[in-house]
This record gives sequence, structure tokens and C-alpha cells, in this order.
Amino acid sequence: MRTVAETLVGFRPSRRTAVEIVALAQAPGRVPAERVVAPQALPGFARSTVDGYAVRAADTYGASEGLPSYLDVTGAVAMGSAPTVEVGQGTAASMPTGGVLPTGADAVVMVEHTQEAMAGTVEVLRPVAPGEGTVRADDDVAAGGELVPAGRPLRAQDLGMLAAAGVTAVPVHARPRVAIVSTGDEVVAPETPELLAGQVRDASSVALGAIVAEAGGAADQRGIVRDDPDALRAALGAALSDSDVVVVSAGSSVGARDETATVVAGLGEPGIWCHGLALRPGKPTLLADCDGVPVIGLPGNPRSALVVFRLVGVPLVRRVGGCTQAPPEPVVRARLERDLASAAGRLDIVQVRVRDGVATPLFGASALLSILTAADGYLEVPEPATGLDADSEVWVTLYR
Amino acid sequence: MRTVAETLVGFRPSRRTAVEIVALAQAPGRVPAERVVAPQALPGFARSTVDGYAVRAADTYGASEGLPSYLDVTGAVAMGSAPTVEVGQGTAASMPTGGVLPTGADAVVMVEHTQEAMAGTVEVLRPVAPGEGTVRADDDVAAGGELVPAGRPLRAQDLGMLAAAGVTAVPVHARPRVAIVSTGDEVVAPETPELLAGQVRDASSVALGAIVAEAGGAADQRGIVRDDPDALRAALGAALSDSDVVVVSAGSSVGARDETATVVAGLGEPGIWCHGLALRPGKPTLLADCDGVPVIGLPGNPRSALVVFRLVGVPLVRRVGGCTQAPPEPVVRARLERDLASAAGRLDIVQVRVRDGVATPLFGASALLSILTAADGYLEVPEPATGLDADSEVWVTLYR
Repeated sequence: MRTVAETLVGFRPSRRTAVEIVALAQAPGRVPAERVVAPQALPGFARSTVDGYAVRAADTYGASEGLPSYLDVTGAVAMGSAPTVEVGQGTAASMPTGGVLPTGADAVVMVEHTQEAMAGTVEVLRPVAPGEGTVRADDDVAAGGELVPAGRPLRAQDLGMLAAAGVTAVPVHARPRVAIVSTGDEVVAPETPELLAGQVRDASSVALGAIVAEAGGAADQRGIVRDDPDALRAALGAALSDSDVVVVSAGSSVGARDETATVVAGLGEPGIWCHGLALRPGKPTLLADCDGVPVIGLPGNPRSALVVFRLVGVPLVRRVGGCTQAPPEPVVRARLERDLASAAGRLDIVQVRVRDGVATPLFGASALLSILTAADGYLEVPEPATGLDADSEVWVTLYR
Repeated sequence: MRTVAETLVGFRPSRRTAVEIVALAQAPGRVPAERVVAPQALPGFARSTVDGYAVRAADTYGASEGLPSYLDVTGAVAMGSAPTVEVGQGTAASMPTGGVLPTGADAVVMVEHTQEAMAGTVEVLRPVAPGEGTVRADDDVAAGGELVPAGRPLRAQDLGMLAAAGVTAVPVHARPRVAIVSTGDEVVAPETPELLAGQVRDASSVALGAIVAEAGGAADQRGIVRDDPDALRAALGAALSDSDVVVVSAGSSVGARDETATVVAGLGEPGIWCHGLALRPGKPTLLADCDGVPVIGLPGNPRSALVVFRLVGVPLVRRVGGCTQAPPEPVVRARLERDLASAAGRLDIVQVRVRDGVATPLFGASALLSILTAADGYLEVPEPATGLDADSEVWVTLYR
């Protein structure tokens, strides 16, 4: 029996996915395998950040509405091309935002702070300091500077930065292939139109697949295996040979779970890391390291399975996929509507609805999936606590 | 000039995407076009929620460790099939978790609260109430009950619930097709290996594409258009004819922006809704309703463009795609490291790093994309405020 915290720290199978090169359009959320640096400085040239006039700042010292500086406009800079004009003492060049600062100029006066006096002359109504109205050639990034770090999934702006630097393909970890195996003589495919007495459709597999994708993995649905050790051994062995993570819903009854544990124990070294988590729901969870591949045996009922997989499976999938900095989860602070009892020594995950800042716990047998679909999120009652009082402030992790 | 809040409420082009049917495996994050109800009750039969013995609760009243109830075990229920045994007065049937409650039984005693007295007899050490250790045939959902609501993107557990009910395909809104058009004589493709003086690579398009996908849309990259009204008119007209939303980066200089506005004004009715937002960065934003299709003219610099698109574009894309309940965003409470100045009357979006509960504002010209890549999230200084004091508590919306 282990705590969730112990598991997240201590259960570290060695498997990592290979590195592949992907184009930027396919890269959102992908995890860079190495830090990517800028081949050249950006923007690469000193640019204007305003519409106005490129000037020598010294020519504007002391300028005011009452006593403007008069400068000769000797030309105009066009967008997207090198200036054909230089700025000398007493002269100015008209500038669009984003234009290249011409030789001789060290600042740009905003057009709002100027006045056209007569053709070819501009009145500057306020002084500018050197550098004002401009960015330097390496203000966004210097040559060799970091564009994106390794290990953090690529965000929209990271892709923009790479594009700006001309880096159009990036080395990322391959998505972890996560095999999902269902077990149970009672479990039938979701497509089954009519259930016989005692049958249930496989609800976990498709839901786990969606969470795998959220975690950056690629789900490999491997179907339903009967409660038979040989069949399970064959199915898990095949899954292990071409997966980075194996998830098996390990049956609801003690007998089915023990059978799964026996099979998993024989799959590889060092084998079973824990059989039981100090977690509710989710106590009958099995974790094994089979020759470096994490194998997660989930409780048989879908609700417990999804709770465990979010808490333990998602960090494992991320780690296998090279992610060292997980994206933030949505959380919200709320007031607990009623007392919650909890046994000390285990982490309790309580599904809640949140309305107007109040978290209402949703109760019901752990076999009921509707509790999860009705929930907006969940709160945690930590291991040492024997419960939470009504009106206490809690953090709710929200589903999305 | 409009506020962001006014825009979110008042700018409502009529376009909605069509409805299509998708399989569950393709449905994560998709938006149901109607509420989906259960064809039959779930689980469909009274089930045991524990390993133990199916009994008549009345036979256990008063049972204790000192004075157990003795029941005759008349059979065993197997997983996944109809019971072949009935439970009469004074008898019990052994039950796996998830098994069908046999006729005559109204509760299940956990195996931990029993003892095998001799072959064929079980001692019950604690009383159970009717219903204990079981779920009813319609406890998860009644026939006709709601499985998932319309308008809320499907979460992992929603897919599980649909699978459990045998609903393997679901009517959803098509993903909004979002055309992304870049403009600017200075803008070149990210693939351009060497920039000429004054050129910049298109950083916005790929980043906007990633945000479109986050919002549930499908980005349609339509390339870079020169600063020429006829070329722009042709490009936007073509984009409008096969898109649900059109996004155009409208140039950095006043001249380019005015040109874009003139072209957009002629694209459809009722036309331009606002030309200017009380927002920084993002003031030069253009919004138009062209025969029901929203057209968003973004500021020319990538950082402003991304800020505006997150605030205004994402809700538009979601609405066009039938989403009435957006997924929660990750936010965190933090202490502001230093004073922030802001002009009253506009919403200021300030990029921040967050470390150990402290939000550090990142400053720099709005043309610099590196401010966004260095940021963990952003905070908002609301329109009425003239700034925020150091040490005030702020909400930071985190990037993911």
C-alpha cells in the first residue's frame, strides 16, 4: 500500500519515447526534446514601434508645443525594405510602425507628437530619448538565445516565436503509445445494442483514451479480454511489446484483481511496485515496472478507474513523453457546502458541483459514472485529515 | 471604440456550424448539438457493489460478532450472466462486485463482515439495511434521462457515460473553419531562411492556428497578402465564402489598418461593428459581421494579435461552434510584485511570470513576442482602475 505522493515520486519506470521532428503546424502541445535556440538575432534590425519620424534624439531636446524643433524631412521609409534615406543632424525620415530605423537615427517620434509645418518640414512637439519608439535588432532574442525550453509542451506563443526565428520544424518526444486493455467476463463492447443480464458496456476505454490524449499520449484501444489468465497474459504481453505505457482495467472483484496481479507480476522486471493505493476511490490499484514500461492496473469500475488514471496515470504518461513541466490545471477556490468525513491515512477524492463559489459534494456508489458526469471537478481530502468542515475553503480541480 | 465586455455581449454574428455525427473516439472536446438521453436505464439491473453475499436484509437484523446470523449458501452468482439461484428466507448467495442481484435478495453483505462457518453456511457479523451493497437498475440513469447536455464540450467521463449507454455516435457541431489571413509587405513565410532588411517572418498565423484548435476550431491557413486593397479584397472574399470565422492580421501602421477597414466594410452586411477596443495591447482591433460571418481584424504585431484573439476571438469561435459552456481556464491567485500603472477607461492585459505565489510583470515593446514566451500567464487591470498596487492579490490566467 502506497500513498499517491509516494507513487508520483518513487514509481519511475525508465521508458521514454523517441525523438521525432514535426512541423510547427503539428506541434501544439508537443514536448521539445531539447531547448531550441535562435539561429539569428530577432527582429534582426532596429525597428520602429510607432508611426512617426526617425530622428536624432539630440535634435529634439527641449522641444515643446510652444517651442518645437523644426526638422527637414529628407525621405520616407517603406515597410519591408531597406531605407533609402539617412538621417543627419537636423533631418528626419517618416516611418511606419515596424519599419527599419535608417542609418543616423536613434529614435522615432510618434506622429501624434509632431505637426507638419510646411512641405518638407516637421515640427517636433516633445523631446524623445535615444532608443525611444524603437526596438533593437536583438531585443526579442539574441543569436543563440533560447526560443523554447526542453520539456515544456509548446504553447501558441512558443510556436509563434519559433516561426519568427525561421525554425519551422522542431525535435519533440514522440507521443507515448498507451495501450488500453479491458478485462471482465461481464464487459461487452459499447456497440452492443441490448445487454444480457449482468453485462455492462465498456465505459472506461473511450474515457481513458480521451484522458490519454489530454496527457499528450496516443491511445491504442486493444479491446476486451475475458477473465482468463492465459488470455490476459497474451493480451498484456502483446500490448507491452509495442507500447510505452500499458493500462489494464483489472476487474471489479477481488478474484479478478488477484488474477491480474499474478499475470502482471510475470511480465517483466522489476515487476510489481505496489498493489494498493491509500486512495478512495482507487484503493485496488496495481502499478508495475515491466522492463521499463509502466503497467497500470486500474479498478474495475469506471469511476474509480478515471479518478486513479487522472491522479497517477496522467503524470506517468507525461513523464514517458519527456514532459518535465506539465501544463497548469484549472482550479477554483470554493466554500464547502457540508461536512465531509474521511478516514485518516488515505487521500479522498470527492466529486463536486460548483455554483456561485459553493462546492457541493456528490455522493453515490463508486460504481456510478453519473456522479462524474454531474461533477464540475473534484476536491482532495489529504491523507492526515479525518474530514473537512462545512464552510471550509477548498480547492477544486475543474474538469475540462 | 468598444470595451471587451461590450464586445463579448453585443457582437453576435449569426453564423453557427452545421451538425455532424461523430464516433465517440473522435468526440473528445466536441460540442453536442442536442442533449443526449439514455435509451434504457443504467446499469439496467440491480448490481452488487461489493464482494460478499446477497441476502434478505431482514435476515441480518441484530446480527453481531457475538451473535451472528447463520444463512445457508444456496449458490453463487457469476459475473456477466443471469443468476441461476434465488435467495429465500434464511439463505444467501455468494456475489462478486458487479454481479446481478438474484431474485429475493435486497442487499449484499460485504465478505469482510462474514465468516465461513462450515461448508454451505455463512455467518453474518453485522446487519445490513435493504439496498445496502447494491445499486438499483436505474441508479446511474433512468431511461430517457440526460446523459450529456447540449453545448458543453464532451469531457472524458461524458464519453464513458455515452459508451455505457450504448450511444456510440453523437450529433455535434462541426468544428468552425477559421480562415487566417496575414497581410503586410514586410511579412514573409516562416520558411524564409534569410531575411532582407525590414522583413519579418509570419509569427502570428501558426500561433493563431494553435489557439483556434484550443477553441475547438479548425484553422485554415490562407497565407500572406501584400498591402494592396484589391489583393486583400480578393483574399478576404474567398476566405469568407468557405469559412465560419475570418481572422486577418490587419497590418501594423495606421495606413495599413485603415486600408483593411475599408476593404472589410465592403465585404457584407451589416459590416463593421467596431474599429478600436478599449484594450491594451489590442486597441487597433476591427470587428465586422459580414452576412453573419464574424471577421476579426487583429493588430499587426504578433503579441497584440494573440492577446486580442484570446480575449475576443476564442469566445467567438466557441459560439459559432455551438459551445454555450466554455471549459474552465486555469487561473491562479498571486501577489503582485510591483506597482502597475494603467490608464482608466481601458482594459490592460499584463504578461506575468508566476513563482512561489508572486506575479512579476514583464514589460517591453508590444512588438516583442519574447514577452509572451517568457510569461506564465496574464493579469487584467480592469477599465475603471488607474493601476494596481504592489502586494495586491491578483488573478492570473495561466497559459497551457
